[in-house]
Amino acid sequence: MDPLRRLEELFAHFPGIGPRQAKRFVYYILSKSPSFARELTQLVEEVRAASNECQRCHRFFMFKNGVSAAICSICADKSRDQASLMVVARDSDFESIEKSGAYRGLYFILGGTVPILDKEPERRIRLFQLTERVAAENTTLKEIILSLNTTPDGENTADIVKEALNGSVEKITVLGRGLSTGAELEYVDSDTIRNALQNRH
Amino acid sequence: MDPLRRLEELFAHFPGIGPRQAKRFVYYILSKSPSFARELTQLVEEVRAASNECQRCHRFFMFKNGVSAAICSICADKSRDQASLMVVARDSDFESIEKSGAYRGLYFILGGTVPILDKEPERRIRLFQLTERVAAENTTLKEIILSLNTTPDGENTADIVKEALNGSVEKITVLGRGLSTGAELEYVDSDTIRNALQNRH
Amino acid sequence: MDPLRRLEELFAHFPGIGPRQAKRFVYYILSKSPSFARELTQLVEEVRAASNECQRCHRFFMFKNGVSAAICSICADKSRDQASLMVVARDSDFESIEKSGAYRGLYFILGGTVPILDKEPERRIRLFQLTERVAAENTTLKEIILSLNTTPDGENTADIVKEALNGSVEKITVLGRGLSTGAELEYVDSDTIRNALQNRH
Amino acid sequence: MDPLRRLEELFAHFPGIGPRQAKRFVYYILSKSPSFARELTQLVEEVRAASNECQRCHRFFMFKNGVSAAICSICADKSRDQASLMVVARDSDFESIEKSGAYRGLYFILGGTVPILDKEPERRIRLFQLTERVAAENTTLKEIILSLNTTPDGENTADIVKEALNGSVEKITVLGRGLSTGAELEYVDSDTIRNALQNRH
Repeated sequence: MDPLRRLEELFAHFPGIGPRQAKRFVYYILSKSPSFARELTQLVEEVRAASNECQRCHRFFMFKNGVSAAICSICADKSRDQASLMVVARDSDFESIEKSGAYRGLYFILGGTVPILDKEPERRIRLFQLTERVAAENTTLKEIILSLNTTPDGENTADIVKEALNGSVEKITVLGRGLSTGAELEYVDSDTIRNALQNRH
Repeated sequence: MDPLRRLEELFAHFPGIGPRQAKRFVYYILSKSPSFARELTQLVEEVRAASNECQRCHRFFMFKNGVSAAICSICADKSRDQASLMVVARDSDFESIEKSGAYRGLYFILGGTVPILDKEPERRIRLFQLTERVAAENTTLKEIILSLNTTPDGENTADIVKEALNGSVEKITVLGRGLSTGAELEYVDSDTIRNALQNRH
Repeated sequence: MDPLRRLEELFAHFPGIGPRQAKRFVYYILSKSPSFARELTQLVEEVRAASNECQRCHRFFMFKNGVSAAICSICADKSRDQASLMVVARDSDFESIEKSGAYRGLYFILGGTVPILDKEPERRIRLFQLTERVAAENTTLKEIILSLNTTPDGENTADIVKEALNGSVEKITVLGRGLSTGAELEYVDSDTIRNALQNRH
Repeated sequence: MDPLRRLEELFAHFPGIGPRQAKRFVYYILSKSPSFARELTQLVEEVRAASNECQRCHRFFMFKNGVSAAICSICADKSRDQASLMVVARDSDFESIEKSGAYRGLYFILGGTVPILDKEPERRIRLFQLTERVAAENTTLKEIILSLNTTPDGENTADIVKEALNGSVEKITVLGRGLSTGAELEYVDSDTIRNALQNRH
């Protein structure tokens, strides 16, 4: 296949990119100096080579100072609360939580969510690795926080994880439900109002 | 002024309507049969004449069977929880809460919100009527729930109401904060994540 | 039916208005002083009573100084070019053309468009009245300009009108096709590019 | 700088991409197999190496069968109309025109547009190369078609090019102005209506 079309195709698989924008990406690269393409390919290779999936939390991380490592900086940080483990679906969810600065414990990335009625959740998410890790750390772990989207898939995933971890840890919690910041009651759905009323304080 | 332009102007003040759509409204009325305009004006008059601002909760309500009343059906309903009073900013917020079916107490409509730095909140909202009502009902009232938007204006209003009611009732609560239904963590703001973590359960 | 619900229903039929906004309209009217409802109903009646469908061009117009008239001010204006007749679908199209200030002839409002495959166009548009008028004015009329949307329905309507008027007037024209003001070639459809190329000058 | 952040930064400069999506691109690459990153970098290099800026029309093109060439396939195609030269601002405009199938002549890519009041147009667009080419081909060239956006910058650029080419060719034309396909008269601007009326046929 024509490498130009193939590159367009590749870009069209990037998250949120359609065929038209993929084409514009290719022209963008062609219109820049050759050094731009060189830097781009170099960075992609560098990032690929200098990063790893953390063996403990399964998120992707960059090596510090180019020194290869099996464990990411958060998993290796003894000052973080070792008694608390937050389970999230994806790296982007982890980023969102870290950015809030509200959490100081450890993480586990499931690698996805389980659609409702899916028969083989262990092929969608790292259920086996999670139960193994929780079993190994059950003397230090006090709480597992399930931080999943409040969408049907997210709630289904939370149910599956809860069941798989049942009895293996003191406390399993989920994020609080209610009004988000900036919410206008007139436009808030009934389900959220119900949760917000229940969780009033 | 030309009645056509004046009618356009009136429609342009309707919520969410700009001058172009106001003009289309006028043409829409003109293009319909005369009986349409007659029904429209009749209904507006009828609704106006058959409705009132409730003397207790200050929401607008229609008279039952055309019998004029000073108090709305919710305020008059003894089966509703008389110990619980929910304070909302507007009729549309009240509608949203009632629709959820999650609340069975009484209401009070403030009539608006107070912008930050506004010096005369009592000119914006029914603060005086609220404190008066709470004082009059303080033997039955156990809880006042402030159901206000989690916007800067809404939170400012909650603070003002809380201060005005301070000490006059056993418990003043606000709606729970956290993830709304359908929330995707990747797009949730840090403030909401912080609240959701704090209110985890 | 409850007049409040019926009024909501009526507003929900206004152009571009859904049930939620219709409800807000009703609350808006209720929340205003009684004099507002009175002015609104008065204006609707006044506009209805002081306006007419022009017997010549069929657009809705307001009487000048309250003096009833069968013919609108444009149709009555002898300084306008009596040799040119522009056919449009709706009053709003007429308004758009007049606003441009680019046309000084007469108008005819079809009252709608004819969907493709519709078998009875004369029930959708004033085809009979148009051919009658053109026949009556065929000594002064030199050009009929079909100003219809360049949508499938608009083009179908143009074809039907053209056929109905065939031979009854010296010249039948349609609006020029090409790039609109502010067009960006990258986003212009192939059909428009073809027209723009054909009509280059 | 951290290569991960630098790669994010690079992606954030891609057309239409913000910092958040740039971050997702990086995670997307990391989450794919190493062979994906390898294919991506290979294709970027390949496309870069197998493409060139055409010495005649200045668009970017891929070499046929990997054989390096100074002139693109359109410029080399003797069956295309050598008497007609279309001037466009960017490669994406050229693509849009070619896709329409309505044009069979040659092209010249200016490389951009000239903002109004810009003092040095020749630093923004290939004005010198264009006049040179037109001078060299003035025995075969019969028409130059300026296909520029009908935006202020596009029209300014058309004026500058027209002046620079003044007298050097038999005919300089611009794309026709009028209603685009799918236009609804109610929403068409006055300027476009004026053009559509002028160009009626």
